[in-house]
Amino acid sequence: MTDARFELRPIAIIESPLTDLAAAPKQAHEGAPEAWLVFEPDVLEAMDGLRAGDEIVVLTWLDRADRDILRVHPRSDVTQPIRGVFSTRSPARPNPIGLHEVQILAIDGARMRVSAIEAVDGTPVVDVKPVLHPV
Amino acid sequence: MTDARFELRPIAIIESPLTDLAAAPKQAHEGAPEAWLVFEPDVLEAMDGLRAGDEIVVLTWLDRADRDILRVHPRSDVTQPIRGVFSTRSPARPNPIGLHEVQILAIDGARMRVSAIEAVDGTPVVDVKPVLHPV
Repeated sequence: MTDARFELRPIAIIESPLTDLAAAPKQAHEGAPEAWLVFEPDVLEAMDGLRAGDEIVVLTWLDRADRDILRVHPRSDVTQPIRGVFSTRSPARPNPIGLHEVQILAIDGARMRVSAIEAVDGTPVVDVKPVLHPV
Repeated sequence: MTDARFELRPIAIIESPLTDLAAAPKQAHEGAPEAWLVFEPDVLEAMDGLRAGDEIVVLTWLDRADRDILRVHPRSDVTQPIRGVFSTRSPARPNPIGLHEVQILAIDGARMRVSAIEAVDGTPVVDVKPVLHPV
Protein backbone atom coordinates (compact mmCIF):
# COMPACT_ATOMS: atom_id res chain seq x y z
CA MET A 1 0.00 0.00 0.00
CA THR A 2 1.42 3.37 -0.94
CA ASP A 3 1.76 5.94 1.82
CA ALA A 4 2.07 8.88 -0.58
CA ARG A 5 0.02 11.92 0.38
CA PHE A 6 -0.83 15.07 -1.62
CA GLU A 7 -1.70 18.48 -0.28
CA LEU A 8 -4.63 20.51 -1.56
CA ARG A 9 -5.16 24.18 -0.84
CA PRO A 10 -8.39 26.18 -1.12
CA ILE A 11 -8.49 28.44 -4.20
CA ALA A 12 -11.87 29.90 -3.20
CA ILE A 13 -14.61 29.62 -0.58
CA ILE A 14 -18.35 29.24 -1.30
CA GLU A 15 -20.73 31.90 0.02
CA SER A 16 -24.19 30.37 -0.03
CA PRO A 17 -27.52 30.80 1.74
CA LEU A 18 -27.29 27.02 2.35
CA THR A 19 -25.98 26.69 5.88
CA ASP A 20 -27.63 23.52 7.12
CA LEU A 21 -25.93 20.38 5.85
CA ALA A 22 -28.93 18.23 6.77
CA ALA A 23 -31.26 20.46 4.73
CA ALA A 24 -28.94 20.78 1.73
CA PRO A 25 -30.21 19.19 -1.50
CA LYS A 26 -28.20 16.17 -2.66
CA GLN A 27 -28.02 17.39 -6.26
CA ALA A 28 -28.07 20.86 -7.83
CA HIS A 29 -31.39 20.32 -9.64
CA GLU A 30 -33.13 19.53 -6.37
CA GLY A 31 -33.59 23.15 -5.37
CA ALA A 32 -30.01 24.25 -4.69
CA PRO A 33 -29.48 28.02 -4.65
CA GLU A 34 -27.11 30.23 -6.61
CA ALA A 35 -23.91 31.07 -4.73
CA TRP A 36 -20.74 33.15 -4.82
CA LEU A 37 -17.25 31.73 -5.17
CA VAL A 38 -14.84 34.09 -3.41
CA PHE A 39 -11.32 33.50 -4.78
CA GLU A 40 -8.08 33.76 -2.84
CA PRO A 41 -6.09 36.91 -3.71
CA ASP A 42 -3.04 34.97 -4.91
CA VAL A 43 -4.90 32.96 -7.62
CA LEU A 44 -6.82 35.81 -9.30
CA GLU A 45 -4.60 35.61 -12.41
CA ALA A 46 -5.79 32.04 -12.95
CA MET A 47 -9.38 33.38 -13.45
CA ASP A 48 -8.32 35.30 -16.54
CA GLY A 49 -10.37 34.09 -19.54
CA LEU A 50 -13.43 33.01 -17.55
CA ARG A 51 -16.60 34.85 -18.60
CA ALA A 52 -20.25 35.08 -17.59
CA GLY A 53 -22.11 32.38 -19.52
CA ASP A 54 -19.26 29.84 -19.38
CA GLU A 55 -20.11 26.32 -18.19
CA ILE A 56 -17.56 25.13 -15.67
CA VAL A 57 -16.87 22.27 -13.31
CA VAL A 58 -16.30 23.38 -9.73
CA LEU A 59 -14.34 20.93 -7.56
CA THR A 60 -15.03 21.28 -3.84
CA TRP A 61 -13.52 19.75 -0.72
CA LEU A 62 -16.43 18.31 1.29
CA ASP A 63 -14.72 18.91 4.60
CA ARG A 64 -17.55 17.57 6.76
CA ALA A 65 -17.63 14.15 5.06
CA ASP A 66 -16.65 10.92 6.81
CA ARG A 67 -13.60 9.59 4.94
CA ASP A 68 -13.66 6.15 6.56
CA ILE A 69 -17.01 5.06 5.11
CA LEU A 70 -16.54 2.79 2.08
CA ARG A 71 -20.11 1.54 1.55
CA VAL A 72 -23.41 3.45 1.78
CA HIS A 73 -27.10 3.29 1.00
CA PRO A 74 -27.34 5.50 -2.12
CA ARG A 75 -28.94 8.85 -1.28
CA SER A 76 -29.14 7.75 2.39
CA ASP A 77 -32.20 5.71 1.37
CA VAL A 78 -32.17 2.57 3.50
CA THR A 79 -34.53 0.84 1.07
CA GLN A 80 -31.69 0.88 -1.49
CA PRO A 81 -29.05 -1.85 -1.14
CA ILE A 82 -25.76 -0.75 0.40
CA ARG A 83 -22.91 -0.43 -2.08
CA GLY A 84 -19.41 0.95 -2.56
CA VAL A 85 -19.03 4.73 -2.48
CA PHE A 86 -17.16 4.79 -5.82
CA SER A 87 -20.44 3.78 -7.54
CA THR A 88 -22.28 6.68 -5.82
CA ARG A 89 -21.95 10.45 -5.47
CA SER A 90 -22.01 10.25 -1.67
CA PRO A 91 -19.79 12.86 0.04
CA ALA A 92 -18.50 10.00 2.22
CA ARG A 93 -15.44 8.61 0.42
CA PRO A 94 -11.66 8.35 0.98
CA ASN A 95 -11.04 11.71 -0.74
CA PRO A 96 -14.22 13.81 -0.41
CA ILE A 97 -13.99 15.84 -3.62
CA GLY A 98 -17.31 17.16 -4.96
CA LEU A 99 -17.95 17.82 -8.68
CA HIS A 100 -20.48 20.51 -9.57
CA GLU A 101 -21.38 21.58 -13.12
CA VAL A 102 -22.52 25.20 -13.02
CA GLN A 103 -22.79 28.25 -15.23
CA ILE A 104 -20.95 31.47 -14.45
CA LEU A 105 -23.60 34.18 -13.97
CA ALA A 106 -21.29 37.12 -13.21
CA ILE A 107 -17.70 37.95 -12.26
CA ASP A 108 -16.89 40.90 -10.00
CA GLY A 109 -13.18 40.96 -9.23
CA ALA A 110 -12.41 38.03 -6.96
CA ARG A 111 -16.12 37.09 -6.70
CA MET A 112 -17.86 34.78 -9.16
CA ARG A 113 -21.63 34.20 -9.11
CA VAL A 114 -22.64 30.70 -10.19
CA SER A 115 -25.91 28.89 -10.87
CA ALA A 116 -27.48 26.30 -8.53
CA ILE A 117 -24.84 24.48 -6.50
CA GLU A 118 -25.45 21.92 -3.73
CA ALA A 119 -22.59 22.94 -1.41
CA VAL A 120 -23.03 24.62 1.97
CA ASP A 121 -21.72 28.02 2.98
CA GLY A 122 -17.99 27.94 3.73
CA THR A 123 -17.18 24.92 1.56
CA PRO A 124 -13.64 25.18 0.14
CA VAL A 125 -13.20 25.13 -3.64
CA VAL A 126 -10.07 23.35 -4.90
CA ASP A 127 -10.31 23.74 -8.70
CA VAL A 128 -12.33 25.23 -11.56
CA LYS A 129 -12.21 23.82 -15.11
CA PRO A 130 -14.16 24.08 -18.38
CA VAL A 131 -16.80 21.33 -18.63
CA LEU A 132 -15.74 18.16 -20.48
CA HIS A 133 -18.76 18.19 -22.77
CA PRO A 134 -20.16 21.67 -23.42
CA VAL A 135 -23.95 21.50 -23.88
CA MET B 1 -5.93 34.30 2.69
CA THR B 2 -6.81 30.99 4.26
CA ASP B 3 -3.95 28.68 5.19
CA ALA B 4 -6.16 25.58 5.43
CA ARG B 5 -4.72 22.49 3.74
CA PHE B 6 -6.37 19.16 2.91
CA GLU B 7 -4.66 15.81 2.51
CA LEU B 8 -5.38 13.48 -0.40
CA ARG B 9 -4.33 9.85 -0.51
CA PRO B 10 -4.03 7.61 -3.58
CA ILE B 11 -6.90 5.11 -3.92
CA ALA B 12 -5.34 3.51 -7.01
CA ILE B 13 -2.39 3.80 -9.39
CA ILE B 14 -2.61 3.86 -13.20
CA GLU B 15 -0.79 1.16 -15.16
CA SER B 16 -0.47 2.44 -18.72
CA PRO B 17 1.77 1.91 -21.73
CA LEU B 18 2.06 5.73 -21.75
CA THR B 19 5.35 6.44 -20.02
CA ASP B 20 6.59 9.57 -21.75
CA LEU B 21 4.88 12.71 -20.48
CA ALA B 22 6.04 14.73 -23.50
CA ALA B 23 4.51 12.18 -25.90
CA ALA B 24 1.23 11.78 -23.97
CA PRO B 25 -1.90 12.99 -25.76
CA LYS B 26 -3.54 16.03 -24.19
CA GLN B 27 -7.04 14.53 -24.38
CA ALA B 28 -8.32 10.96 -24.35
CA HIS B 29 -9.70 11.10 -27.91
CA GLU B 30 -6.29 12.04 -29.26
CA GLY B 31 -4.95 8.50 -29.30
CA ALA B 32 -4.71 7.73 -25.59
CA PRO B 33 -4.47 4.01 -24.75
CA GLU B 34 -6.59 1.83 -22.48
CA ALA B 35 -5.13 1.37 -19.01
CA TRP B 36 -5.48 -0.48 -15.73
CA LEU B 37 -6.42 1.15 -12.43
CA VAL B 38 -4.84 -0.89 -9.62
CA PHE B 39 -6.72 -0.17 -6.38
CA GLU B 40 -5.23 -0.05 -2.91
CA PRO B 41 -6.14 -3.10 -0.80
CA ASP B 42 -7.89 -1.06 1.90
CA VAL B 43 -10.45 0.59 -0.46
CA LEU B 44 -11.65 -2.51 -2.34
CA GLU B 45 -15.03 -2.40 -0.58
CA ALA B 46 -15.66 1.01 -2.13
CA MET B 47 -15.56 -0.60 -5.63
CA ASP B 48 -18.63 -2.71 -4.83
CA GLY B 49 -21.40 -1.89 -7.34
CA LEU B 50 -19.09 -0.87 -10.19
CA ARG B 51 -19.57 -3.01 -13.30
CA ALA B 52 -18.04 -3.42 -16.77
CA GLY B 53 -19.88 -1.01 -19.06
CA ASP B 54 -20.32 1.73 -16.44
CA GLU B 55 -19.29 5.26 -17.42
CA ILE B 56 -17.21 6.82 -14.66
CA VAL B 57 -15.19 9.92 -13.90
CA VAL B 58 -11.64 9.15 -12.77
CA LEU B 59 -9.95 11.89 -10.75
CA THR B 60 -6.15 11.80 -10.93
CA TRP B 61 -3.39 13.68 -9.15
CA LEU B 62 -1.10 15.06 -11.85
CA ASP B 63 1.99 14.85 -9.69
CA ARG B 64 4.40 16.18 -12.29
CA ALA B 65 2.49 19.42 -12.88
CA ASP B 66 3.86 22.83 -11.96
CA ARG B 67 1.50 24.23 -9.29
CA ASP B 68 2.87 27.77 -9.42
CA ILE B 69 1.81 28.48 -13.00
CA LEU B 70 -1.40 30.55 -13.11
CA ARG B 71 -1.51 31.48 -16.83
CA VAL B 72 -0.70 29.37 -19.89
CA HIS B 73 -0.99 29.21 -23.66
CA PRO B 74 -3.90 26.76 -24.12
CA ARG B 75 -2.61 23.36 -25.33
CA SER B 76 0.97 24.75 -25.12
CA ASP B 77 0.24 26.47 -28.45
CA VAL B 78 2.13 29.78 -28.38
CA THR B 79 -0.07 31.14 -31.18
CA GLN B 80 -2.98 31.09 -28.71
CA PRO B 81 -3.20 34.01 -26.27
CA ILE B 82 -2.04 33.28 -22.75
CA ARG B 83 -4.85 32.96 -20.21
CA GLY B 84 -5.72 31.80 -16.72
CA VAL B 85 -5.43 28.08 -16.01
CA PHE B 86 -8.99 27.88 -14.61
CA SER B 87 -10.30 28.50 -18.16
CA THR B 88 -8.16 25.64 -19.50
CA ARG B 89 -7.58 21.94 -18.83
CA SER B 90 -3.82 22.45 -18.42
CA PRO B 91 -2.26 20.15 -15.79
CA ALA B 92 -0.48 23.26 -14.46
CA ARG B 93 -2.80 24.73 -11.77
CA PRO B 94 -2.78 25.27 -8.00
CA ASN B 95 -4.31 21.84 -7.34
CA PRO B 96 -3.40 19.56 -10.26
CA ILE B 97 -6.46 17.30 -10.30
CA GLY B 98 -7.22 15.65 -13.64
CA LEU B 99 -10.77 14.65 -14.71
CA HIS B 100 -11.12 11.73 -17.10
CA GLU B 101 -14.42 10.30 -18.37
CA VAL B 102 -13.91 6.64 -19.20
CA GLN B 103 -15.84 3.40 -19.51
CA ILE B 104 -15.09 0.38 -17.34
CA LEU B 105 -14.05 -2.46 -19.66
CA ALA B 106 -13.41 -5.16 -17.05
CA ILE B 107 -12.90 -5.65 -13.33
CA ASP B 108 -10.58 -8.35 -11.99
CA GLY B 109 -10.32 -8.11 -8.21
CA ALA B 110 -8.41 -4.93 -7.39
CA ARG B 111 -7.71 -4.23 -11.10
CA MET B 112 -10.05 -2.25 -13.32
CA ARG B 113 -9.52 -1.96 -17.08
CA VAL B 114 -10.71 1.38 -18.50
CA SER B 115 -11.07 2.89 -21.97
CA ALA B 116 -8.71 5.55 -23.41
CA ILE B 117 -7.20 7.71 -20.68
CA GLU B 118 -4.54 10.41 -21.14
CA ALA B 119 -2.58 9.81 -17.94
CA VAL B 120 0.93 8.38 -17.78
CA ASP B 121 1.98 5.17 -16.07
CA GLY B 122 2.24 5.57 -12.30
CA THR B 123 -0.25 8.45 -12.03
CA PRO B 124 -2.12 8.34 -8.70
CA VAL B 125 -5.94 8.12 -8.76
CA VAL B 126 -7.73 9.99 -5.97
CA ASP B 127 -11.43 9.29 -6.68
CA VAL B 128 -13.86 7.43 -8.95
CA LYS B 129 -17.50 8.54 -9.41
CA PRO B 130 -20.43 7.89 -11.74
CA VAL B 131 -20.52 10.43 -14.61
CA LEU B 132 -22.70 13.49 -14.05
CA HIS B 133 -24.56 13.09 -17.35
CA PRO B 134 -24.75 9.49 -18.54
CA VAL B 135 -24.72 9.35 -22.37
